[in-house]
Amino acid sequence: MHVLILGGAGMIGRKLSAELLKTGKLNGAAISRLTLADVIKPEKPLETIIPRIEAIEADISRPGEAARVASLRPDVVFHLAAIVSGEAEANLEKGYTINLDGTRALLDALRRKEPGSGPLTKVVFASSIAVFGGNMPDFIPDDYYLTPETSYGAQKAMSELMLADYTRRGLIDGIGIRLPTICVRPGKPNLAASGFFSGIIREPLIGQEAILPVADTVRHWFASPRSAVQFFLHAASLTPAQVGLYPNLTMPGVSATVAEQIEALRRAAGDKAVALIKREPNEVIARIVSGWARGFNPARATSLGFKAETSFDQIIEAHIEDELATSAQKEHLATS
Amino acid sequence: MHVLILGGAGMIGRKLSAELLKTGKLNGAAISRLTLADVIKPEKPLETIIPRIEAIEADISRPGEAARVASLRPDVVFHLAAIVSGEAEANLEKGYTINLDGTRALLDALRRKEPGSGPLTKVVFASSIAVFGGNMPDFIPDDYYLTPETSYGAQKAMSELMLADYTRRGLIDGIGIRLPTICVRPGKPNLAASGFFSGIIREPLIGQEAILPVADTVRHWFASPRSAVQFFLHAASLTPAQVGLYPNLTMPGVSATVAEQIEALRRAAGDKAVALIKREPNEVIARIVSGWARGFNPARATSLGFKAETSFDQIIEAHIEDELATSAQKEHLATS
Repeated sequence: MHVLILGGAGMIGRKLSAELLKTGKLNGAAISRLTLADVIKPEKPLETIIPRIEAIEADISRPGEAARVASLRPDVVFHLAAIVSGEAEANLEKGYTINLDGTRALLDALRRKEPGSGPLTKVVFASSIAVFGGNMPDFIPDDYYLTPETSYGAQKAMSELMLADYTRRGLIDGIGIRLPTICVRPGKPNLAASGFFSGIIREPLIGQEAILPVADTVRHWFASPRSAVQFFLHAASLTPAQVGLYPNLTMPGVSATVAEQIEALRRAAGDKAVALIKREPNEVIARIVSGWARGFNPARATSLGFKAETSFDQIIEAHIEDELATSAQKEHLATS
Repeated sequence: MHVLILGGAGMIGRKLSAELLKTGKLNGAAISRLTLADVIKPEKPLETIIPRIEAIEADISRPGEAARVASLRPDVVFHLAAIVSGEAEANLEKGYTINLDGTRALLDALRRKEPGSGPLTKVVFASSIAVFGGNMPDFIPDDYYLTPETSYGAQKAMSELMLADYTRRGLIDGIGIRLPTICVRPGKPNLAASGFFSGIIREPLIGQEAILPVADTVRHWFASPRSAVQFFLHAASLTPAQVGLYPNLTMPGVSATVAEQIEALRRAAGDKAVALIKREPNEVIARIVSGWARGFNPARATSLGFKAETSFDQIIEAHIEDELATSAQKEHLATS
């Protein structure tokens, strides 16, 4: 089986490929070939149990690039390539070019010309809860309407519709997964409006200060990077018959307020960690975040076997296990 | 005010332009210029109270054509240009090219470069209840998810999302109206799967046989051509503040079963007319129609002042008044 990860250099792409490299299998079948593709050439793992592994530079929004990627004849494509919300909002053309046209070019390059004219390529598409926005219910049901309030969300929603249409027509075997906000994101603080949700956990856990720009009462929808990887792997295991005509699924997650995040941090790392959170209200960030989903009732995904953490404590635990593995970091946590 | 109708040669386009030509006004403001555009040059009215009127050939899905249309600097654009459901299903590329790319090219040509860099063009977009499909509630609420089960429906839904995004960004002043099945369509029988809904009324009213390919119990959502024209005119009168962030609205209509259609026909034209309906069950048509919406609760549109017929009798009455105006036809009806 040939597996291709588009967006292989990103945080989730790297974790997904690391997971595949652990066993050399996807859903029990041996991976004979793994291709990592991104606009900057991903790092190629040196030692691996997968016989053939390649890292390539590819920007599917450029003419001919999607066809070149498709000519590698992958059996399964994880499509994680996108520009993020802030950039898509700042640059209208770039957002539509990369997030919509890139996806469309990929689907057109991978699809069969007619139904039944060959085996279907499995396409697992990274969508987002950004397809929802505005004045939403506390727990959004699966049959809730698409209400993006960012260009990024609109582009993801449009791509979902095309993925569903091509899948319904029997031209690809597509599934879209609407990722919760991934928390705790490893690495350095960034300028994303959502960055503080990770920052107020990640920084205090290593003894550093973090800024909290919104009120404690803000509620949002989270899953760990580890869960995100499992969503992609599980999505690749589902058949078109299981997924049906609406292949875009809101993933499970944890609905937590900032106050609940902070109490989970206190249970994991004590008052000293919590004291490192500095409140600096920021109206711009507060306004952006007020338009985000607070929670979902992802009944379809759950019934199809998708699983996430069930408490924010588990999300912190996953971060500690996966990211704070050095003895110095563990030492800090133990004595905090 | 310069009004442009794209798809001006189609049934609704012609009725819409005829309505504008009656008064020479749109929402109380004088129309100084009217442009009718279509892939085949629309007929140009000879006598008119509008000072300047032009009919042009334009296919907005071709390179440069949308820019040429936009260079005419219309203040209001009614965008009715599309290929229909059956053709979009038969020809994947053509459907996406005309229904999605054409709309996108138009929006990109009409939009401001930055918010506030000039007055916004009002764009009234003809969407469709085909954005819904499958196993739906009897009365679909405004916050129901998009479930197209045709490529046409997917293309309309994608166009809606782009229209909403550009409107939210302040680049156009867009509104999308999801038309019910328009009934009674004037003219000759056609091969559209929905054709019989009109045929079983239209043909018997002029003493001709009509085929009914589905069961009496089939329920669907209707409005007259007259209501469709009023939807477009009313949509053009609404401000962005009234429409808000979700400018795509399901229009009001009449939810009626085939049996209710037939009883309304009996009340309008007697048993002799009803006897002209021949039952010829067709499984293909029955299966297609089984995936169509049965009814809506279009609360948002209603609260914004959109109005349609409230009974199927009124829909037949509108057809008789608007289409059967010749004395011979009236005579037939009076003696039937």
